[in-house]
Amino acid sequence: MSQTPVSQPRFITLEGGEGAGKSTVLGALRDALLATGAEVVSTREPGGTPLAEQVRTLLLDPGHEPASPETELLLMFASRAQHVRETILPALQRGAWVLSDRFTDSSFAYQGGGRGLDPAVIAELERRFVMIHPGLTLLLDLGVQQGRERTRGRDLMPDRIESERDDFFERVRAAYLARAQAEPERIRVIDASASADDVARRAVALLQHYMDATA
Amino acid sequence: MSQTPVSQPRFITLEGGEGAGKSTVLGALRDALLATGAEVVSTREPGGTPLAEQVRTLLLDPGHEPASPETELLLMFASRAQHVRETILPALQRGAWVLSDRFTDSSFAYQGGGRGLDPAVIAELERRFVMIHPGLTLLLDLGVQQGRERTRGRDLMPDRIESERDDFFERVRAAYLARAQAEPERIRVIDASASADDVARRAVALLQHYMDATA
Repeated sequence: MSQTPVSQPRFITLEGGEGAGKSTVLGALRDALLATGAEVVSTREPGGTPLAEQVRTLLLDPGHEPASPETELLLMFASRAQHVRETILPALQRGAWVLSDRFTDSSFAYQGGGRGLDPAVIAELERRFVMIHPGLTLLLDLGVQQGRERTRGRDLMPDRIESERDDFFERVRAAYLARAQAEPERIRVIDASASADDVARRAVALLQHYMDATA
Repeated sequence: MSQTPVSQPRFITLEGGEGAGKSTVLGALRDALLATGAEVVSTREPGGTPLAEQVRTLLLDPGHEPASPETELLLMFASRAQHVRETILPALQRGAWVLSDRFTDSSFAYQGGGRGLDPAVIAELERRFVMIHPGLTLLLDLGVQQGRERTRGRDLMPDRIESERDDFFERVRAAYLARAQAEPERIRVIDASASADDVARRAVALLQHYMDATA
């Protein structure tokens, strides 16, 4: 149960803050994978199974008392444990590609960087309860102010995490970039200040390069 | 964050399977504490805060796919992390007694004994995310068949855990008894095959003895 997570070549994750254009990129990556004739499972975190989606609702719903940072971390890993076992691993085992909007890197960025929890504790939960690493992670990097400007007016009802202040998102961004620096082969940083189409083209180019290299 | 949990003299927990008479005992213990003029906070797990009660609903609701054992364990500890920080510690800090229907021992019994998860992993989550131990735990011990007979007809809609088979509950019982044997000072076993009134009287006598000894 405590083995090192195994890298899965067909497991691709997308990371980054709000307003970085994740939705456009996810669609473009899915299309590029489908064009190869592959089966593609598109999923997200927190969520990705009926139970994990209900955990997502709890996490983002501002209708109860705030979760303590530790509670939030454990709920994220509960949802992830279910997602890996019920959705991701079965798909990988039948040869599908899995494209996930967020995965464990988000816990290091948001609960580690943002909430200030010890990264060693997060790494321990990863070792104990998550058996896999993505083969490729694309990180859409964007300045906090620019992200705010892009999402302004989009969310009439911001969820719990979207309601955090700028210094929280600055710490999230710094934690993401530190992870990319530590794992430059797996985590490719994309400057998301360009237009959505340019960002999507860059993401697809990185994916194609990755597929060529691992083919 | 990884210190050994601290024993809390005014924190009392009740453990045991279904049909052992926990409700009657909880009422009797509460009355005995109230009779001393103390403030008494009665709570339960999973649950004990608005958010943790919603996690409880997820855990027990048979309306989605089954949680993996690991997911169940992490949800239990998410609910517990919230319960300790939001309800139990604030009450203890103002001098109240806290009486909880289930606590960490339940995770060792149900997710450890019942589901077969490694007790060392459970102990690690306890060290990382739970800062406290109860000063006194009363374990209502009852044969699985007798518990079944007592609850028969009571639950028209058994929840996920109540729907498990007898061998699951035999393992739960064995794990409880092993914990009691390992910590005989904290965990006092009460034979719950007697009448509910006799069991409650025995529980109150043990509580009174504990209060006299710690006064």
